[in-house]
Parts: sequence; C-alpha cells; structure tokens
Amino acid sequence: SDRAIMTTGSGTTAVESMIFSLTSSGDDVGAVTFGEFGDRLIDSLHRRGLNVSTLNMTENDVLTEDDIKDFIVRNSRMKSLFLVQNETGNGTSIHDMRKITMAAKNMGVRVFVDSVSAFGGVPINVRDWGIDAVATCSQKGLASVPGIGIVLLGEEMAGMVKARNDIPQYLDLGISLKFLSKNETPYTPSTGSFNALREALRILELEGLEKRWARHHSNAEYLRKSLKLSKSEILGNSNNYSDTVIAFRPRLPVKDTIAGFASRGITVSRGMGKLADSIIRVGNLGIVTGQDIHEFVHAYYEICGIHESSIEEEIPPDSMPDPEIMNLL
Amino acid sequence: SDRAIMTTGSGTTAVESMIFSLTSSGDDVGAVTFGEFGDRLIDSLHRRGLNVSTLNMTENDVLTEDDIKDFIVRNSRMKSLFLVQNETGNGTSIHDMRKITMAAKNMGVRVFVDSVSAFGGVPINVRDWGIDAVATCSQKGLASVPGIGIVLLGEEMAGMVKARNDIPQYLDLGISLKFLSKNETPYTPSTGSFNALREALRILELEGLEKRWARHHSNAEYLRKSLKLSKSEILGNSNNYSDTVIAFRPRLPVKDTIAGFASRGITVSRGMGKLADSIIRVGNLGIVTGQDIHEFVHAYYEICGIHESSIEEEIPPDSMPDPEIMNLL
Repeated sequence: SDRAIMTTGSGTTAVESMIFSLTSSGDDVGAVTFGEFGDRLIDSLHRRGLNVSTLNMTENDVLTEDDIKDFIVRNSRMKSLFLVQNETGNGTSIHDMRKITMAAKNMGVRVFVDSVSAFGGVPINVRDWGIDAVATCSQKGLASVPGIGIVLLGEEMAGMVKARNDIPQYLDLGISLKFLSKNETPYTPSTGSFNALREALRILELEGLEKRWARHHSNAEYLRKSLKLSKSEILGNSNNYSDTVIAFRPRLPVKDTIAGFASRGITVSRGMGKLADSIIRVGNLGIVTGQDIHEFVHAYYEICGIHESSIEEEIPPDSMPDPEIMNLL
Repeated sequence: SDRAIMTTGSGTTAVESMIFSLTSSGDDVGAVTFGEFGDRLIDSLHRRGLNVSTLNMTENDVLTEDDIKDFIVRNSRMKSLFLVQNETGNGTSIHDMRKITMAAKNMGVRVFVDSVSAFGGVPINVRDWGIDAVATCSQKGLASVPGIGIVLLGEEMAGMVKARNDIPQYLDLGISLKFLSKNETPYTPSTGSFNALREALRILELEGLEKRWARHHSNAEYLRKSLKLSKSEILGNSNNYSDTVIAFRPRLPVKDTIAGFASRGITVSRGMGKLADSIIRVGNLGIVTGQDIHEFVHAYYEICGIHESSIEEEIPPDSMPDPEIMNLL
C-alpha cells in the first residue's frame, strides 16, 4: 500500500530523501524549473549524480500536457520526471498537474513532485493521478509548526524502494520504511513537532480538504484582485498563478514596502536572487482567512497612500474557515 | 573562529553532515568501533565512498593512546580518524579522549568525533584538544527536547570547509556556514526545538559544565555500585565504563525486568542486535539526579526480590543539582 514517511527536518529533507532514495546514480531524469526552487531541485539531482535534462520556464510561461509529452519524446531515455508544483521564488504554480503527471506516467516515466509549498493548500492526488512520490513538510499547507519533512510514496513505488549503500542513512527511505512497519522512526524524532502535526491534521480533517483548497483559491483571487486595483503588477498570469504564494511588484521600493508592513506587524518576504529588490512575496498557506487578506490589503493601501474607499473589495464568504475551526486555534 | 552549526534533525543528521561535508569520496580514513553506533558510523563512511580502515574493539577492550598511534602507523595514508566517544549500544566510552585526539592530531591526522550520547555529560574540549569536528544533538547531554543536530567545527576546520557538489544540500555544512554568517539557517528550522535548546543551555550555564560532568560521573558510579551489590553484571570495565549509558545483565530475564520497570513508570531499553535479550541499558543524561538513581535502584531491587536494607547505598551529595536548578525544571 502507499506510505507516508516523516523525518525530522524541513521540506528540503523530504525533497532530497525522495531524490537520493528513489533514483540511482547515472539515471537519466528530466526536471522542469520555473525559478529558485526548481533550480535547487536540479542542483540536488546533479548532487545525486543523475543525467539531468532540464526544461526551463519563466514566470510568464505555462506548462502544459503537450510540453511534457514533447519533453519526454525529445529525451527518450528519461526514466523519471521531477516537477516543483509551486515555485515559491516567483509565485507561480503548475495548474495542469493532473493531466501532466498522468501523461508522463502513461509514457512509462516515473513522476516525482516537490509539493513543499503546495501540498494541503491546492489539489494534488498521489493515488488517483498515479504519482510515484511527493515531498512536503509540516509547516506550510498542513498548517503545523516546522520540524518535519514528509515523503508520500505511491503504492507501486513503496513496493520498489531498495536498500541503498551510496546515500546517507538519514535520507535513506529504505531504512525509514523498515522502521515504519514497526510504527517507529529510525532516528530520534522531534516529538513536539510530531504532536503538533497530529493536531494540525485533525483541524485539516475537520475543515475538509476540498474546502481548504477552495479557501486558498478564494483568498488568492481576492488578494490578486485587490492588488490589481491598486495598479501593482502581479508576477505570472491567470494560467500559472500560485494560490499559496502571491508575488507582486510593489508601487513603492521593496525596502520601504517591507518596512511599512513591518511597522504594522505584518511580515512579507522580498524576492530571491535577481528578484530581491523588485518583488514582494506574500504567503497564503494554512489557516489564513479572508479577514487576514482584507487587513493585509488595507495595510498595503495605507503604505502606498491609496484611498481605499474607491477600490476596497468585499471579503468573499468562502475565504473564511467555519467558526468551529477558528475556535480551535 | 570555531563554529557551531545547528540543523533540524537528530544526532545522525549531525554525524552524517560531518562525514559527508568534511571528507571527499576516495579519502583514506580510519574508524574505531566498540559496537552498534561505531558500526553505524562506519556504514556512513562507506556510504560516503571512503576507504575505511577499522579498529574493532569489544565492550571488554580499552582504547589507549598507543592503540591509536599503532593504528595510524599501520595505515599511513589515513587522513582522518573517526571516533565514537560513547557507545550507547553496550555502555562503553573512550576515557583517554584527550590523549588520543591530541596524539592523532600531532601525527597529522584530522580527528572527527561522534559525541552524540556524550557531549555535555562528560568532558570533551574541541578547542584545547585541537579536535576538528564534533557531532552531537539537542536531547542528550544538553538536556533539551529532540529536534536539532549540532556540529561543532574547530577553528582550523571552519576555515577549510569547501563548497561541495556531490552531497545532499541538506547535509552540506558549506551552505550552513554561509547562512550562519547571516545568523540564519539555510532551511526552515524547527523553531520550537531551537527555543527549547536556548533554555536548556541557560540551565547548563547555571549549573556549570564541570559540575554537570561531576554529577554525571557521581550518578553513574552510584548506579554501578548498587548494581554490583545486587550481583548484576555490568558490561565494560572500570577503564571504559560509560557515565551516560549504563548497560548490565539483569538477574531476571530482560523482558520481565523491562515489564517490572514499566509497571513502576520507569522506561529502560533492552540491548541492540545480539544483545537484545541479554542486557538492560539505562540512560544517565541531562538532568538525572541522585534521587532518580536511588528510585531506580529501589525499583530494581524490588523487581529482583532483593532485601534492600542489606545493600542500599547513600545518595552521593554531588549527584544532585543545586536547588536553584531544580526549581527551574
């Protein structure tokens, strides 16, 4: 059956456990990058000693089923395909995940997904889409505290994980699977983080996965509409917008905008690398409510000196979790 | 200057970060094993692709300065020596650490120490002994919650850590050092575990490192004396006893002894591997008091049906932390 392996660490622990445990040095693999985290994934693939074919996309591009079919046909030795579902670096996301992963699987290529900043917040279905493995972590879409990297193995892959002798024990999912069969972890777990994750999963179950996805989408749309009304340019386009990280070019310099948010008790991130001085990134993950977005937009309008009465939007009703969820927090 | 690198994970994360970041595939290295954790260390060295010479010791052997000098002379290409300060598997420990590490350094060999189950509880001095790196974790001698692996780099080694391209990013201390210079971690840290560690280190500072070492030693001696009086055989000998893990052959079968302790609310471990059905292992790490040892011995005498009045020992005064420490817990 399929398996969920939890390791004390971060999303990177999960992504690299997946890469190092489920490939062999010298394998031909393909990878798609839209930015910083796609590039990090590719760096890890090289560190594993894989022969990597890359498909380079930008925040303006939309990855389609046909792109993937072409990519696989052009690289016919490809055994595995690596995708980053959500690119935190520039706020883009792969919308056609279902079609893309199923097309690759139908062409005999294994599919591995870095869903660190997506899983729980937007749709992905390891079982129904036949995905071989997905990497995520405790503190993003699952809305818990940091401390746990998670690898979900599809049924077929769980049965194929081999003993390794050329990768660190700590990242060896073969060792983890043996201990999982005894309901143990191979190394001392961060017990506090495990207990917190159990509570977070109870809250997720109470909200319902599809309602959570709808809430993230509604909140993201609400934020984007409000940013557009303020004439701030959003990175990406309607076919690749991320619902969990919204990236935009602020009207004032990035530094001043961050300081303005900070003085109002709101933390935002600047861009990474070349985008450091040109964009702001807003996290919309876990238990973020429409009210939170409303307050964020209000603060942004104030920072920019925009008269909010002319452009303020109504909070969409499906952007709020049920009161019973809010009472638990 | 020297550096302490903290990574969300376990002691194994620290040990493998040290191995993978501070050696290069193909290097000639030496390693000493006394049991399970020594064997795991050697397994990791093989996974790194090193040429490993091993010195195999048992719980009856004592590692001396001369053993190490001979070992290095016999393996003249050895660049690095790996030691496990405390072997949790059978309750033995290297007593001559200072002389041994300094002898190896003087022979031009780098010294790397797995001190996971020793550091904080017994003496080790990275600076004065010229050790290149030491691996430990948050939840043992430092007496915090689990969740953080720690690598301490000596001054010389900290200046020599190179960029790597053949190891996982997660274990790459070169990346960690870059972020450390900005007071950051490269990957999302387990914030709860970091906060807990800061508090644990405050308590350690308050107790004083040398007092803590003395308390561990006194408690270990007290426990061993009481076990000997009960005619239970302790593994090891007075020249290699561990002060942080005491291993003994119980008078009753292991299973019954563990059940007896469990019914009194006390958790002990059985042995690992071949020792699983023959020994009990007792942790004496962190804030364990003489009173705790007294209660443990009392429980053990009860389980064995021993009349305690005939053999009960006095709690040694230096086995208790000061009341101001106890009030903080």
